Amino acid sequence: MKVWVPSHITGFFAAKRHQDPLKSGSIGCGLALALGATTAVEDSDETEIFLNGELSEAPVSRYVVDALARSPVCVKTHLDMPFGSGFGASGAGALGCAYALNAHFELGLFANQAASVAHVAEVANRTGLGDVIAQNAGGLVVRLEPGAPGLGCIDRIPVQPLDVNYVVRGPISTREVLSDQGVMEEINRAGEAALKDLLKRPTLQDFMRLSQRFTVQSGLASDWVLDAIEAVEAAGGMASMIMLGDAVFSLGGAKALKEFGEVGTTNISQRGANLD
Amino acid sequence: MKVWVPSHITGFFAAKRHQDPLKSGSIGCGLALALGATTAVEDSDETEIFLNGELSEAPVSRYVVDALARSPVCVKTHLDMPFGSGFGASGAGALGCAYALNAHFELGLFANQAASVAHVAEVANRTGLGDVIAQNAGGLVVRLEPGAPGLGCIDRIPVQPLDVNYVVRGPISTREVLSDQGVMEEINRAGEAALKDLLKRPTLQDFMRLSQRFTVQSGLASDWVLDAIEAVEAAGGMASMIMLGDAVFSLGGAKALKEFGEVGTTNISQRGANLD
Repeated sequence: MKVWVPSHITGFFAAKRHQDPLKSGSIGCGLALALGATTAVEDSDETEIFLNGELSEAPVSRYVVDALARSPVCVKTHLDMPFGSGFGASGAGALGCAYALNAHFELGLFANQAASVAHVAEVANRTGLGDVIAQNAGGLVVRLEPGAPGLGCIDRIPVQPLDVNYVVRGPISTREVLSDQGVMEEINRAGEAALKDLLKRPTLQDFMRLSQRFTVQSGLASDWVLDAIEAVEAAGGMASMIMLGDAVFSLGGAKALKEFGEVGTTNISQRGANLD
Repeated sequence: MKVWVPSHITGFFAAKRHQDPLKSGSIGCGLALALGATTAVEDSDETEIFLNGELSEAPVSRYVVDALARSPVCVKTHLDMPFGSGFGASGAGALGCAYALNAHFELGLFANQAASVAHVAEVANRTGLGDVIAQNAGGLVVRLEPGAPGLGCIDRIPVQPLDVNYVVRGPISTREVLSDQGVMEEINRAGEAALKDLLKRPTLQDFMRLSQRFTVQSGLASDWVLDAIEAVEAAGGMASMIMLGDAVFSLGGAKALKEFGEVGTTNISQRGANLD
């Protein structure tokens, strides 16, 4: 029994913290991608977590194991996506753990109940605020109200399973950004404005346009990111920054992206987390 | 631009009618299936709806077209599933229409907003109460509170994309069943009990077990249906009646089903309605 979870890239967001981690989260919009994570769980003498074959601390997944496992387990997660660059790798691992432990120990949790544990793990570790709820749903997900899956309010913008290109230069620490109050004020102002405008006409094109505006307004973009976006635009594609990574995603314009690094290509995942 | 919508078979349900069609619906549980419907829309001199190549009244789809089309359109829906036998064909056509018109006229509707129009079309035509919200989500969907997509409350039971077998002897009129108060009382009592028990341990196995109990208690099953279920059970599979059709679905036991008619095989669809 394996669990599959899509990656998730956020185009724009605003953090919404609450004392109750189930009510903590973010508003914003992002894409679930077919570049996924698979997780399997088996009984073991002691609890161990392997990421791509290497024994790992994996604190976010560990939080989920501590919450749900009834006895020691060996967790094996294979991540197809880059780490630490805004693809929701920590959320994918934690969400995969939650589904896998639910199946393994026959806990009888609904999808939203299992996913809520992964959401709380992300909030507690300050590794993410909105990836899990979107990864649980799949597609182009708008986060209308913050919170854990089932508590937060989301909707989807209908979208074809289009190809998505990406280039990653390096990671950005989500924890550092989320902890810097000055930076967060800029982000939240720009993220709330973007969501307000998206509600007027929720389409994929408007998502890309508003993500790009957020990229500039939030002050999070490196010159490298801004140059890459401009190059894709000049080639007739649409691009924006992956939140939070020193990374860019595009629809079309793969050729223009090539001068900025190794271009990966995946596609939009219309399905969310589930047993594989 | 095409839209794809899964079929949906209900295992058990209870009708929950309300004066407001957006709040009308059903509680219960069912499976989205890969056996789908594709819908395309193009501009036309007069509005026409074709189902599998034949000009059709298609009142449920027509309701959606009248609500959303800005000018006359030709709608072409291809249905892979049997008609009138509990696969949610009318809901699939209507939901496909809603997504297709949203894309064609750039209406800027969220998925739930488009799907709500299809839900209301089903309620108004008495052709269904819970298919659309489940088809919009995909997977093994539990309908916890009635209502249109976004208003009604659903969750998913994690499930692998398993093979599902089915045999159809003939249709049952959803409109007739929903209009018979005596029959509906039996159904609602059995359906509410089934949901209450499913909440104690929501798993695929319990869904099948409770669907089978509902099949007997609701009084909807023909002897043919009960015999087919028994044959699958004897062969080590799990089976229940498709609500509402003179039809049976099974996990495993395809061989045992063969003596009851032509066996179709599809699989659980983990994705819901979306652009294709």
